[in-house]
Amino acid sequence: MSFRTIEWLDDAVVMIDQTRLPGEEVYNTYTDFQSVAEAIKGMIIRGAPAIGVAAAMGVALGARAIIADTHESFFRQLDNVCDVLGRTRPTAVNLFWGLERMKRVAEANRSKSFDKIREALKKEAILIEQEDLTICRNIGKWGATLIPEGATVLTHCNAGGLATAGYGTALGVIRAAHEAGKKINVFADETRPWLQGARLTAWELMKEGIAATLISDNMAGFFMSRGEITCCVVGADRIAANGDTANKIGTYSVAVLAKENNIPFYVAAPVSTLDLSLSDGSKIPIEERPASEVTHIRGVAIAPEGIRVRNPAFDVTPARYITAIITENGIVTGDYRSGLRKVASFSCT
Amino acid sequence: MSFRTIEWLDDAVVMIDQTRLPGEEVYNTYTDFQSVAEAIKGMIIRGAPAIGVAAAMGVALGARAIIADTHESFFRQLDNVCDVLGRTRPTAVNLFWGLERMKRVAEANRSKSFDKIREALKKEAILIEQEDLTICRNIGKWGATLIPEGATVLTHCNAGGLATAGYGTALGVIRAAHEAGKKINVFADETRPWLQGARLTAWELMKEGIAATLISDNMAGFFMSRGEITCCVVGADRIAANGDTANKIGTYSVAVLAKENNIPFYVAAPVSTLDLSLSDGSKIPIEERPASEVTHIRGVAIAPEGIRVRNPAFDVTPARYITAIITENGIVTGDYRSGLRKVASFSCT
Repeated sequence: MSFRTIEWLDDAVVMIDQTRLPGEEVYNTYTDFQSVAEAIKGMIIRGAPAIGVAAAMGVALGARAIIADTHESFFRQLDNVCDVLGRTRPTAVNLFWGLERMKRVAEANRSKSFDKIREALKKEAILIEQEDLTICRNIGKWGATLIPEGATVLTHCNAGGLATAGYGTALGVIRAAHEAGKKINVFADETRPWLQGARLTAWELMKEGIAATLISDNMAGFFMSRGEITCCVVGADRIAANGDTANKIGTYSVAVLAKENNIPFYVAAPVSTLDLSLSDGSKIPIEERPASEVTHIRGVAIAPEGIRVRNPAFDVTPARYITAIITENGIVTGDYRSGLRKVASFSCT
Repeated sequence: MSFRTIEWLDDAVVMIDQTRLPGEEVYNTYTDFQSVAEAIKGMIIRGAPAIGVAAAMGVALGARAIIADTHESFFRQLDNVCDVLGRTRPTAVNLFWGLERMKRVAEANRSKSFDKIREALKKEAILIEQEDLTICRNIGKWGATLIPEGATVLTHCNAGGLATAGYGTALGVIRAAHEAGKKINVFADETRPWLQGARLTAWELMKEGIAATLISDNMAGFFMSRGEITCCVVGADRIAANGDTANKIGTYSVAVLAKENNIPFYVAAPVSTLDLSLSDGSKIPIEERPASEVTHIRGVAIAPEGIRVRNPAFDVTPARYITAIITENGIVTGDYRSGLRKVASFSCT
């Protein structure tokens, strides 16, 4: 990769500022957990797996700054750090998964000195980041088997290196197929309102030398109906036990159009995106973001002042539209309820 | 209406500049046919019925400027005027319908003096504009019967007063329902890349005092799947003999999503939008517009330089997704082939 999404460097967290891409390639340095929380909320960093890494590193930063007389006070303050980080974005479950994992590590080291706990948390955060890269490569390896030679793959939003510690989930599948020597062409939905596709996916694919074509979201159906799309691959923010998948707004429409045109629709995500505690997608909280994301583009007004706006950031694609879910532990298709339980348990053993 | 889309004023054509709405309400004056052709191509004026009016007025302007010794020369030059206007935009059939109607009037007056022919053409162009308003009101009257009290109506692009001589087709239906005292709420797709929904439909509905909510195109499916949309109403650029309908890019996706969610999907258009010479929608030419419309929004770059782009301006919705086609001569549903022939013949008798 020719960029780093997020890394722990000299006891600080460094992130590429995704609000400024593709125009500027700027790296921000964060030394306290509050500013990491703000970075997540303001989408300096975004993408479910990347948010999980950022939250974990935020906890490690928070732990470093805690001043406490007792272990009880230390852990109370650590809980507060996790609460602040947990209130940033509600939909991507990786955020909560990352926080839970950090809490478990703290708990396991409860009897040790503050500095030992801090060190364990820092190590765990860095481990989560490193593991994510391996996980994405495995997702890519599995997923690439589904992508035919010469395929034109439609993707929505950015489930790329920028949405993870690197390599990507949906773009990981595309990268792996490309690395395997397959001739792949990608259609990237621009993904309004935040334009992750136009700004981030197009940028990543150009850097990688993978043939990419940018379209508006509402053009995907046109190209599907003309037989120009071989398959669709997207990422996920949260997958319920029955396979219902929350992902960037517009994913549901892509899935419905794919089904209508008999085009395979794949979801690529790490096991950390599974939320088996939810029986189906109706329980996934959907974040609504500010109206200004719809009425303004890069600061320029595109709508009359005072117009009412709705801005759900995610939608839920029912499992019946999903041809397969690609995880680092294998491809799940058919009976998602048992298949997802199986791939989830692999990582625990 | 609190604005005029296009009118003949003091031997010139005056149009509201739709590229500058909603920020600025500017009226441009055109005195030669070449600049009217440029205005159509540059989307100063857009919307199938409005383009038909503009083309007709362009012919009238062109005829005024012809210098000829013989009738043969006059008519040869008039043909050239029509050719230039006909090469502006390929998809909306109203453009060609308007030009054909003007040619017939010229032909019918062939034996008369140049000035008499010019006068007849001017009168016809003004008549087309005035008729369009009546036609839209009739579309509205028929269509309003399909809109239930308290309905939330989703529309795509702008098929409003700005797309016609006034009142609108899809928005004509909504206006008529509103005028009939029904409480209507409208969801307006922003309609990338040109943002007709965000810029024009939102502006028109706010001016009219009709409750409107602006969303990104990729959010329509979300609100349909949640049961928040009662029905969809859109305009049309060309309707083939079997009911297949070309309209603004993204319309096909709205129709597929509506069908998947059991929501009625209506097309509202004048008979002049019918092209019964085409057996089905596969024969409708689809305009592709410049890449910069996708990569830039109001002059601001939103994608990396050099990214490949596709920009089809229209798509075709197969008739099987269309619940009914609302014309000024009645509502067609079921067997479109015979129904459309019937409503088309009404206007010829």
